[in-house]
Amino acid sequence: MRQYILPRTFKGEDSLVLRGKESQYLIKVLRLKEGQHILGRDQAGRAYQLTIEKIAKQECRLSCMELKEDASVQTTDALPSYAGPYPNLTLMQCLCKGKKEDQIVRQATEIGVREIVLVQSRYCVPDLSSKSEKALGNRFERLDRQVKEALQQSGSPLSTEIHPEIIPLTELSKWWNNRGPALFFHQSNRNESQKTLHELLEALPIDTPIALLVGPEGGFSEEECIFLEDAGFHPVLLRTNILRSETAGIYALSAIQTIMTEKKN
Amino acid sequence: MRQYILPRTFKGEDSLVLRGKESQYLIKVLRLKEGQHILGRDQAGRAYQLTIEKIAKQECRLSCMELKEDASVQTTDALPSYAGPYPNLTLMQCLCKGKKEDQIVRQATEIGVREIVLVQSRYCVPDLSSKSEKALGNRFERLDRQVKEALQQSGSPLSTEIHPEIIPLTELSKWWNNRGPALFFHQSNRNESQKTLHELLEALPIDTPIALLVGPEGGFSEEECIFLEDAGFHPVLLRTNILRSETAGIYALSAIQTIMTEKKN
Repeated sequence: MRQYILPRTFKGEDSLVLRGKESQYLIKVLRLKEGQHILGRDQAGRAYQLTIEKIAKQECRLSCMELKEDASVQTTDALPSYAGPYPNLTLMQCLCKGKKEDQIVRQATEIGVREIVLVQSRYCVPDLSSKSEKALGNRFERLDRQVKEALQQSGSPLSTEIHPEIIPLTELSKWWNNRGPALFFHQSNRNESQKTLHELLEALPIDTPIALLVGPEGGFSEEECIFLEDAGFHPVLLRTNILRSETAGIYALSAIQTIMTEKKN
Repeated sequence: MRQYILPRTFKGEDSLVLRGKESQYLIKVLRLKEGQHILGRDQAGRAYQLTIEKIAKQECRLSCMELKEDASVQTTDALPSYAGPYPNLTLMQCLCKGKKEDQIVRQATEIGVREIVLVQSRYCVPDLSSKSEKALGNRFERLDRQVKEALQQSGSPLSTEIHPEIIPLTELSKWWNNRGPALFFHQSNRNESQKTLHELLEALPIDTPIALLVGPEGGFSEEECIFLEDAGFHPVLLRTNILRSETAGIYALSAIQTIMTEKKN
């Protein structure tokens, strides 16, 4: 583990008592001892030096000191790594089956996406519109666990958020509200003047919000493509084979992050 | 399925009889009827129009006509897609646990890597040097099945090959034999003058052989890095979080394929 993601209830206090599973995890799994430090991160992405002050049965007490710079704390796994800047990426992922969705969320979090939104489109295999609130709640809880694990393991300083509602494709552009360019990935060229990723991204400052919409296994329908284009989404052809949905998202994120971070900013 | 990968025994004959599982797959799973066509591809990557001539119990007979161009055949899933050119990529993947290895091989094949080589390095968790030939054989057979499925599903025109032996890291450069640049991915900058992917790739023609070496979960040791640099491998920092091995390979392949295919060639 490269960092410990603090509970949502933590609001920057000087100390924190962890109980039950959370305490077990630090003491039994990571085998931290009294006096040892670990990097903590709260839900807003702020970094803390956590020190194990006291270990008791079923609980442990930590002191929490906010850090100005991430680099100075000694963690259980003190590998050096890239420290930013990161592009500001939102993944709009059309619904897939559960296991694939888990894999996409895990890998997108590792790579450092800011937000993930699940999208209902025409060819999505799971239709969640008739699911009970409880079933949907379980689905989001499962995805939140994937995010937390991936943040802890990858040391990502971006606190990836899953948007708590599924958005129909037709309401995406209202939700996105022109925060920055929105791209959607399609397996053939939509028109002659279609731009490459490099052309679309070359003039953008690194912190520009960018949305990536990735289709379901069956792709987008012709009406959906036209709707998206009318709403200002840019069609992008990935110059590769036809990818499964769980590969397409990671492919697009990797390509865009590399282009954005390697530019002279 | 977007194409059918022909058996290794096929050598360009005008007709072919499939038996057992292979026949079942076309007739029962894909539900092809007599007279229908499907795109076939042999081990060397040549494309054929296959026509179902005769369906019998437990077997079927196909006629095979070699195609000059891929585009003209009607397949069961006739989605248009990118038709090349593809960069010439070799993935050198340090050994991971079985399930991760399956995922890496599947996704790398989808993306269109030419060759995958398994590498034994210091921090690999599975040490296969003491495994029986039979256990190793099973491992390679399992990976070959992953490749075949991914080729059929993605329609990749590159017939991805798994090199049939595990190569120790120290013998990689002899095996690669300077066919083109070899890159290895490391989580911190190795030196001040280290180049970005764009800088390393900008002058290369699209068909230049490029090798990508991806480490195991524990990364490379300092000695291994020095050894690789002395052997002419270029260290590359991926400007992202610390990725798990199964994400790192796909990340690097996606970034490199995008850079190579979007350049003005």
